[in-house]
Amino acid sequence: MPKSPAKTVTSSSSERSLGTVALRWHGDRLELLDQRLLPAEETWLTLKDAEGVARSIRDMVVRGAPAIGISAAYGVALAARTADDSRWKEDIETAIGTLSDSRPTAVNLFWALKLMTDILATCESREQAVQRLAEGAVQIHEDDITANLSMAEHAMEAMNETSPFAVLTHCNTGALATGGYGTALGVIRRLHEGSRLQKVYADETRPWLQGSRLTAWELQRDGIPVTLNAEGAAGCILHQGDVKWVVVGADRITANGDVVNKIGTYNLAVLARHHKVRFMVVAPSSTVDMDTASGNEVKIEERDGLELREIRGQAIAPEGVDVFNPVFDVTPASLIDVIVTERGVVHAPNITGMYQLFGPERAG
Amino acid sequence: MPKSPAKTVTSSSSERSLGTVALRWHGDRLELLDQRLLPAEETWLTLKDAEGVARSIRDMVVRGAPAIGISAAYGVALAARTADDSRWKEDIETAIGTLSDSRPTAVNLFWALKLMTDILATCESREQAVQRLAEGAVQIHEDDITANLSMAEHAMEAMNETSPFAVLTHCNTGALATGGYGTALGVIRRLHEGSRLQKVYADETRPWLQGSRLTAWELQRDGIPVTLNAEGAAGCILHQGDVKWVVVGADRITANGDVVNKIGTYNLAVLARHHKVRFMVVAPSSTVDMDTASGNEVKIEERDGLELREIRGQAIAPEGVDVFNPVFDVTPASLIDVIVTERGVVHAPNITGMYQLFGPERAG
Repeated sequence: MPKSPAKTVTSSSSERSLGTVALRWHGDRLELLDQRLLPAEETWLTLKDAEGVARSIRDMVVRGAPAIGISAAYGVALAARTADDSRWKEDIETAIGTLSDSRPTAVNLFWALKLMTDILATCESREQAVQRLAEGAVQIHEDDITANLSMAEHAMEAMNETSPFAVLTHCNTGALATGGYGTALGVIRRLHEGSRLQKVYADETRPWLQGSRLTAWELQRDGIPVTLNAEGAAGCILHQGDVKWVVVGADRITANGDVVNKIGTYNLAVLARHHKVRFMVVAPSSTVDMDTASGNEVKIEERDGLELREIRGQAIAPEGVDVFNPVFDVTPASLIDVIVTERGVVHAPNITGMYQLFGPERAG
Repeated sequence: MPKSPAKTVTSSSSERSLGTVALRWHGDRLELLDQRLLPAEETWLTLKDAEGVARSIRDMVVRGAPAIGISAAYGVALAARTADDSRWKEDIETAIGTLSDSRPTAVNLFWALKLMTDILATCESREQAVQRLAEGAVQIHEDDITANLSMAEHAMEAMNETSPFAVLTHCNTGALATGGYGTALGVIRRLHEGSRLQKVYADETRPWLQGSRLTAWELQRDGIPVTLNAEGAAGCILHQGDVKWVVVGADRITANGDVVNKIGTYNLAVLARHHKVRFMVVAPSSTVDMDTASGNEVKIEERDGLELREIRGQAIAPEGVDVFNPVFDVTPASLIDVIVTERGVVHAPNITGMYQLFGPERAG
């Protein structure tokens, strides 16, 4: 039975903490830290079927593009366990469909489900499916951690900074949003390990407050110096001059290097360019979608206006007021200095640079 | 005894609604709508002394630079009523000192207190002070409304738009923030009256949520089409192209045309410039501070980090996490297309343009 990945992995130099992870696999069940309740409560939910995992993704028990992909893969593994013997393949395919409908924007979800579908195609019995799909999900999970550690190394090289500086980040891209260590927050973690981090400014990230509820919580727990700010203060912070890099994650990167990420990312990219602060996007290559030409073609999820009208059941806006609540925005490649993936780095991204690293001949 | 100003005033063409006002003067007491409780509750507080008014300003029962100035003036009028007969002048001066310490950034507060101090200097008895200070406060209040109506007319001319368009605004600059009608929101109200307003996007304005709690509430009540958005969505909205003007208020305008306003204003100015959307600042001339050379010299109020760590007593960030919570930011004149005051308009503001309208020879 595959074991839950350890919370520390051995890197080339030392045992490195992965930070506070939010998903645990126990072979017959997936445990998810309910991120809706943080930081007030640490409650773990136990999922034993794909429907529960799909619901957890939709309802944002688990969030963050890589963590969604990993959870969905475990969901498929669970579907093999609960499938009916006489129609196990159809049952698993139905589960893949349900998981696929849980969130529309993050491409890692579809990428992970595609890998699982490919594994399913090799299975000739339910027993085989139970075994291989679980192994496949664990592999996706472990590869994600390895990818995060590689990204952090690539980012160090791309930044090429020798003295400590401050970083501004948005949303949550840490251990909580991934299999462990984090993408953008992994880079920040790596800066801290290398004594090159002055501090992290964390945008609170309305409406879901991923910055205050998750990033500040995770960094505080991991002993990384963090200062929380309202998104409105970002310009003021960049004007002060101690921030040298804005570092964010991505939910989808299109063929021309446009980045779809949490609403508010585009604001930061414009502000960074205005202040000559560099802008780095950190995401696994599973986030790259070379089949979509540009960010303009990506369907952007809009969530219920209640997310702005209420906080924890208390009205903070007049009842029924119209709300524009897109979950993501598109940052054009022209505003991005570096895209970092585990495969390598694209400087000043455009379609040529993206094809060099992610073109068909490099697909694997 | 001076009466409470009517909720409608007669403009040149028609009786015009002032919107939902938040302060009422009854000669012997000031009533303030407790803006901390909106939109859930409409509670009016009754103030009978200057200390209560100062506390209401400090605790943000009343907010908005013009409304703060008007309230402080009424506070001085109340001080005359409660003053001891034997040392009435000292008592009123002490009250002026207390009111002056209530909020550090809004220059209207000091402007209103200066006017009241000048009136006090003319008084030879407590009775005279009671009468003249009340008349002075009412005059400040009525002048503010008149100024707002003039600003709206000047803004129409400066905008020179013939077909309907959308506007993005920040914080609350409406009837609630002024004596009535509003500054930036007065301009928006005027656009609506003239059938030139498609809709208003209202930034929710963290951390105090003036946009969702006050602006959305006020506009909904007054039948002006409003869509609420998280500040992170502003770039995305400006990219869509229906917004032609960003219109905001000001807490202080310095001699070079820099604008100190609610945190997040500077972000919007950078975003507007990037999207070639025009940026208008609307404020009474009492906001102009020709004694301060530039925004860099203004002391920016920082408020308690609790404003980001909690919402209505519920933790939304880890306990004790460090917070950067400046209340205002500085928008450099170079990012502003038009400053509108009741005295007239400064296009592409700089020190020359500011001196033409607000230089010493024009003071009065």
